[in-house]
Amino acid sequence: MAEYHGLSQIFTTTETSLYNNLFKSPNPPFHSPTALILEISPNPFPQTNHTTTNFVPIIKNNYSFDNLEILDHELETYRSKFNGNGHDNSNNCNVYVAGHVLVYPSYNGFFEKPGLFLDQMFVRKCYRGMKFGKLLFSAVAMQAQKMGMGMVDWLVADWNEETINFYEKMGAHYIPEYRLCKLYGDQLQAFGKKSD
Amino acid sequence: MAEYHGLSQIFTTTETSLYNNLFKSPNPPFHSPTALILEISPNPFPQTNHTTTNFVPIIKNNYSFDNLEILDHELETYRSKFNGNGHDNSNNCNVYVAGHVLVYPSYNGFFEKPGLFLDQMFVRKCYRGMKFGKLLFSAVAMQAQKMGMGMVDWLVADWNEETINFYEKMGAHYIPEYRLCKLYGDQLQAFGKKSD
Repeated sequence: MAEYHGLSQIFTTTETSLYNNLFKSPNPPFHSPTALILEISPNPFPQTNHTTTNFVPIIKNNYSFDNLEILDHELETYRSKFNGNGHDNSNNCNVYVAGHVLVYPSYNGFFEKPGLFLDQMFVRKCYRGMKFGKLLFSAVAMQAQKMGMGMVDWLVADWNEETINFYEKMGAHYIPEYRLCKLYGDQLQAFGKKSD
Repeated sequence: MAEYHGLSQIFTTTETSLYNNLFKSPNPPFHSPTALILEISPNPFPQTNHTTTNFVPIIKNNYSFDNLEILDHELETYRSKFNGNGHDNSNNCNVYVAGHVLVYPSYNGFFEKPGLFLDQMFVRKCYRGMKFGKLLFSAVAMQAQKMGMGMVDWLVADWNEETINFYEKMGAHYIPEYRLCKLYGDQLQAFGKKSD
């Protein structure tokens, strides 16, 4: 995803940082950075009791994946360790990761209710055109509703017309006037040293 | 501030919503939406023991406010209830609110460390040109550093050249390509009702 956005040179995420940021937070899911994982299976999806605070997994049966090996050339790499009852390190379940969405709680001082900020939405290339993006987006919007939040917001690259159209069809407002600013690295560190 | 941005028509914040969003969160300051208040006083600022988790008030004595009544025509409206030891409802302290900054924790999946998102920075008109914006910005950047965060980010209106210059002088990166999308109101509610 960082490659797609031409941001490989600033990419510093590691397995450890993902673990720390997503799983070691003292705050429950959706009150701190939270990933929803999109998983697919050629078999009926195992009924899950792997619910967590605030979230019940969404299961859809209106897809069929009979020839997964032909569709997905990296199938083994993306085999899930989730077997419906938590994690199964034996790697035997026929469940595969097809995408993810990453959100965290946000707050805009102009609005009555807080929201969810959608930081990343990604569907692996071989699973595109199957409306999985819409499914992930819906899951986030429904979750925001369920938690009494008033909005979902996110950023989109201005050259990404296809995606902008997709968002507008979902009912999103495209707001052209704001630009992102970021302070990081040496420029941020300089502030820690300032005495006046 | 909403007026300044031409956003009065979407402004739904109330005193109750501010209270709920800022003071009723189960998460400690800076792990949920947090406001830093800029206060000024013509007297030496009372030494405070009003520290809170993660934050020690920053006191600067390199300003003088001898003729506050002349400078600030809304002085009484903005008299602070804070007397250095918490809140003093007798309204007798010579401390006045001059501005604020509103932040919440953010997370960008491309970076190793989480950050702070700066949602609002506001200095009342009569206190502009005194480098209070820089002071508030520094307080946020230092706080991010202190908490082991890797960045501060925020949005700026593309027509606001003066502010963009201000941010760039601070060492911020201006990133022209991203646009904000927001899903709220009826369009968000529609997702709660969808069954497929």
